[in-house]
Amino acid sequence: MIIIFKKNAEEKKIEEFIESWKAKGFGTHLSKGENTTILGLLGDTSTLDANAICANEVVDVVQRVTAPYKMASRKFHPDNTVVTVGSGEGVKSSTFGKNTIGVIAGPCSVETEEQVVEIAKAVKKAGARFLRGGAFKPRTSPYAFQGLGKKGLEFLLTAKKETGLPIVTELMDIRQLKYFDDVDLIQIGARNMQNFDLLKEMGKVKKPILLKRGMSATVKELLMSAEYIMASGNENVILCERGIRTFDNYTRNCMDISIIPYLKRESHLPVIIDPSHAAGLRWMVPTLAKAAVAAGADGLIIEVHNNPEKALCDGEQSLRPEEFADLMKILPKYAELDGKRC
Amino acid sequence: MIIIFKKNAEEKKIEEFIESWKAKGFGTHLSKGENTTILGLLGDTSTLDANAICANEVVDVVQRVTAPYKMASRKFHPDNTVVTVGSGEGVKSSTFGKNTIGVIAGPCSVETEEQVVEIAKAVKKAGARFLRGGAFKPRTSPYAFQGLGKKGLEFLLTAKKETGLPIVTELMDIRQLKYFDDVDLIQIGARNMQNFDLLKEMGKVKKPILLKRGMSATVKELLMSAEYIMASGNENVILCERGIRTFDNYTRNCMDISIIPYLKRESHLPVIIDPSHAAGLRWMVPTLAKAAVAAGADGLIIEVHNNPEKALCDGEQSLRPEEFADLMKILPKYAELDGKRC
Amino acid sequence: MIIIFKKNAEEKKIEEFIESWKAKGFGTHLSKGENTTILGLLGDTSTLDANAICANEVVDVVQRVTAPYKMASRKFHPDNTVVTVGSGEGVKSSTFGKNTIGVIAGPCSVETEEQVVEIAKAVKKAGARFLRGGAFKPRTSPYAFQGLGKKGLEFLLTAKKETGLPIVTELMDIRQLKYFDDVDLIQIGARNMQNFDLLKEMGKVKKPILLKRGMSATVKELLMSAEYIMASGNENVILCERGIRTFDNYTRNCMDISIIPYLKRESHLPVIIDPSHAAGLRWMVPTLAKAAVAAGADGLIIEVHNNPEKALCDGEQSLRPEEFADLMKILPKYAELDGKRC
Amino acid sequence: MIIIFKKNAEEKKIEEFIESWKAKGFGTHLSKGENTTILGLLGDTSTLDANAICANEVVDVVQRVTAPYKMASRKFHPDNTVVTVGSGEGVKSSTFGKNTIGVIAGPCSVETEEQVVEIAKAVKKAGARFLRGGAFKPRTSPYAFQGLGKKGLEFLLTAKKETGLPIVTELMDIRQLKYFDDVDLIQIGARNMQNFDLLKEMGKVKKPILLKRGMSATVKELLMSAEYIMASGNENVILCERGIRTFDNYTRNCMDISIIPYLKRESHLPVIIDPSHAAGLRWMVPTLAKAAVAAGADGLIIEVHNNPEKALCDGEQSLRPEEFADLMKILPKYAELDGKRC
Repeated sequence: MIIIFKKNAEEKKIEEFIESWKAKGFGTHLSKGENTTILGLLGDTSTLDANAICANEVVDVVQRVTAPYKMASRKFHPDNTVVTVGSGEGVKSSTFGKNTIGVIAGPCSVETEEQVVEIAKAVKKAGARFLRGGAFKPRTSPYAFQGLGKKGLEFLLTAKKETGLPIVTELMDIRQLKYFDDVDLIQIGARNMQNFDLLKEMGKVKKPILLKRGMSATVKELLMSAEYIMASGNENVILCERGIRTFDNYTRNCMDISIIPYLKRESHLPVIIDPSHAAGLRWMVPTLAKAAVAAGADGLIIEVHNNPEKALCDGEQSLRPEEFADLMKILPKYAELDGKRC
Repeated sequence: MIIIFKKNAEEKKIEEFIESWKAKGFGTHLSKGENTTILGLLGDTSTLDANAICANEVVDVVQRVTAPYKMASRKFHPDNTVVTVGSGEGVKSSTFGKNTIGVIAGPCSVETEEQVVEIAKAVKKAGARFLRGGAFKPRTSPYAFQGLGKKGLEFLLTAKKETGLPIVTELMDIRQLKYFDDVDLIQIGARNMQNFDLLKEMGKVKKPILLKRGMSATVKELLMSAEYIMASGNENVILCERGIRTFDNYTRNCMDISIIPYLKRESHLPVIIDPSHAAGLRWMVPTLAKAAVAAGADGLIIEVHNNPEKALCDGEQSLRPEEFADLMKILPKYAELDGKRC
Repeated sequence: MIIIFKKNAEEKKIEEFIESWKAKGFGTHLSKGENTTILGLLGDTSTLDANAICANEVVDVVQRVTAPYKMASRKFHPDNTVVTVGSGEGVKSSTFGKNTIGVIAGPCSVETEEQVVEIAKAVKKAGARFLRGGAFKPRTSPYAFQGLGKKGLEFLLTAKKETGLPIVTELMDIRQLKYFDDVDLIQIGARNMQNFDLLKEMGKVKKPILLKRGMSATVKELLMSAEYIMASGNENVILCERGIRTFDNYTRNCMDISIIPYLKRESHLPVIIDPSHAAGLRWMVPTLAKAAVAAGADGLIIEVHNNPEKALCDGEQSLRPEEFADLMKILPKYAELDGKRC
Repeated sequence: MIIIFKKNAEEKKIEEFIESWKAKGFGTHLSKGENTTILGLLGDTSTLDANAICANEVVDVVQRVTAPYKMASRKFHPDNTVVTVGSGEGVKSSTFGKNTIGVIAGPCSVETEEQVVEIAKAVKKAGARFLRGGAFKPRTSPYAFQGLGKKGLEFLLTAKKETGLPIVTELMDIRQLKYFDDVDLIQIGARNMQNFDLLKEMGKVKKPILLKRGMSATVKELLMSAEYIMASGNENVILCERGIRTFDNYTRNCMDISIIPYLKRESHLPVIIDPSHAAGLRWMVPTLAKAAVAAGADGLIIEVHNNPEKALCDGEQSLRPEEFADLMKILPKYAELDGKRC
């Protein structure tokens, strides 16, 4: 960590400041220029609070050299983390972070048992390894359909039993956790990415967590939220890009493709992409899915609905089962070019 | 609501679509142009889900004419909502939304009993009407100081007793609510603005709610979050702008001053400004506070710390008590020009 | 175009307003609801100014149904525009917009004749079809290297002669045009995307134009800028995405991959990607290039430098010739999956 | 300037790198930590190109300590620059940057001689010190009204003669300069803020320049563009905030109020605000104007039209003369609180 002192800072106060760090066991290196005095702080600075240091009256600027996250950093964990998802009798588990592209598919919202079972069978047949479906739904409007809740989870579990697909669904409130015993992968949604109490609880859970990037979260903030979960005890975190908010709105969100290579380099955690929420446009989903695989994504989460016109939620971005099947025929060819398979 | 049909939509399906709305009791007006067929949907469309309509195969574009919020809209509630904050023996309550500028002041984090009591006395003397202080703190890093929690609330209550100032503090998780009995105004932070389960719970609480705008929330989303609280039973909501995220970072966030006149016109709820979090720079806070009052804000929430260099959190943006006192001498003059007082 | 009238608008003024449009030859359809009166305006509304209409005292909202661009729209020009670039003795021309991926490569800035000739030979050997190089350089700082100007163009022409590669370079000011006689493709940079006088001049030029998206230009604005060139007489426009500005800065800009499928659907013009300026990071360029091809780009423009450490400009984002050659071995495989070749 | 070396950088190459800076006359300070080696570069680093340094293979991060602008910086020019605008017989000149709020008012576009003279008289009577009016208009669409051009300038000059108000108008292309002899303040619009050739030409002009911030330009970029003009020979630059582009669109742009105190601290140049283009909404303009004055603006530029419903451009954001007169009655009271007058 580099600390630049204010021009008019008292010599004596700078000395006291430096001594306080030495006392905490940090190494220090002082550089005095004609205009600028700079302190290099050496040791484990990853958990220091740059803002708090900045409040000191002698300090002008604080610049991090090492990232503020540690457990999520590839620096301290050079090998890919491989997250296995799926357990229970008859369930076919699969991994994220190895040489397979894990495709999660299913309806935005669980609506009926028939619907979710039918879609589950269709996506399994097409090659999906996991079933998604929303039971507790975060909706901007209090008047919009809020999901079937506990009932929706039951329908998902039926589909899991009938197909053997591990299931992925969103947890919005810690009080819902009691219903999640048989869920295989817990999704923390974009709007809860910085719900820190919820993240801490996810650290105590014995299940992998799918952490979605907030719609205006920086990459650093996403990794800090992963760090919350990991520092609380759960290292099975999968990161998910689902589009960010920009000045334009020709798509619902802007899929930030660069985050894939960046996260793969900066962190050891698996990275997947949600092209459905990013685009918000059905016809664009397959193209974005191919680009994500070409960019090195470890997986995809795609909305599929058997009757998108009548979907209770996000129908305009859901693929029909046959469109999803078409996509699953071409995706493996892109995966292969990267030495992977779907 | 205006619905534009796709160019190649089947006549018969359009008719079915229109019939389905008539059956639900909506009025319809159809316009057929050479290139475009347009449906005007009449009735209470405020609670309809535009996205869901858009998923229908015959629909190209859906355009709202009326806002998707109702209880928060001035249209259905022309007079200002006046929110009274403060109760208990010896406590001096005050209002937001009338002709006073309600100034809330205090430390970012509660650190010790002495600290919060000393600051409380100082801000009261300077003219603040409410005391703020964080006990449960949302921090980006799991390694940063997370607040004193329950203990912090106790210190705040001591300060309340000693000064008679109503207290304002943040609730991050519904499980903390049991400690909030004597809190006067519950703050929902920017990162929880779309924690919908928490919002619903705030609707059941018998206390006013200070709802902060998310750092990339649109005005419409802010009002929808207020609507969540109101539709769940609590109409005492105060809206708070605390800066938004843009492409620049010379300030921590960009204080969106235009939201004040916009919200005052669009909604009947009181609107306050947090210049401390917006700027993140101590020296800029007084200027932004004056601008906010000139723009018609109903109140301000300002960080004050007796020793910002040693603050455990956000010291670089906290005013010293004497700086706050100076500001409180000039602010009433700006308030007066708008027919208000501090 | 849909016009929604203000609630309290005078009946008589609305009638006058409608008559004024009829007089101009537009068709009109009026819908009167209990709360809302809506006018559908029919005819060629693409060139109307929505803001100007909105200023009328009876008008509340104006909503476009048809796009404000016409010549750039696929609606009126269903087939792909194929732009041929390159002319002169010994020059090998190539196309954008057909079934080839046109790769443009070369240094950010032209520095010496030897440099640009050496790089030109290297990129040609690797498979590039066009040579880029900056002679007139837009630099944020007046103290930064501003390019070699006319001399730089001469060096580029030498490289063109020696390799037969058509050349691409940026025009910043209309007074430079006199030196561009032998340039094959004129680049209008991101900062000049809305330099409307320059766009009009580009309409009069008998050469294809490479129009880069401004760093915070919407897709609609990009297409309107293309429309400026086309409406002024030059239909050979190639659109280029080079990254947009968002709230995050882990890359220099955010490459907006979704713009490829969107532009290919909305317009008939070729679309290429500049992964070098988007990422600003050398190691990320090959990954983004692959993703762009997977998403359907018609070409790429990539910075290559034989000695990036000593580059006078943007060295940190330039590939070395051998890195570029490696990329050109894998890119055709992605192109093939889309039925194209490099 | 602080340079952090890559972890695995060769010792010998670091030494060469350091020697190269010493040879250029810079002072150097080296700090070696266990993980990090840091170089402090001392001397006049303001004109160095951080990106170019970053391209060196041994360099990991470059961090500026001093700003990259010099002539625009208050550090090297502690006193306010006072810009006087207006010259010619019968013309009443006024200043920006002293203790007056310079109000510029007039129509968005010049339409007829009668229109501009009538508005000029009205705004003069209300207290405006300068007349604005667009003759050359930057319009997003090639089909929108492009301004009267040279004819419009003539009408403005008539209004100048009749009222004695100095005139302000936009220059879009260097070829228009020949018509600007009697213009008092040349405006460089937001879309040309980084038209570097135009900026250089403005450095040679013997008139003050009104430089508008680009709609997504950082504060640093705005100051660098001012630096271009100043370094080319013209120190009479007035900076203008006119709203930035964010994720929300309830106003046309987001007026960034914090830029006023920031620029006043960081630079010595006058700062004015354009609330008309920022809001894009007539009713909001007076509120934003008051806030700007409360925040310390040195001036305002406000659109006034005698018949906004029929305006050829931006009518929806223009004040009527009587609305402007009302604003000019209240503004001086805000100015007075800041020790200024209108």
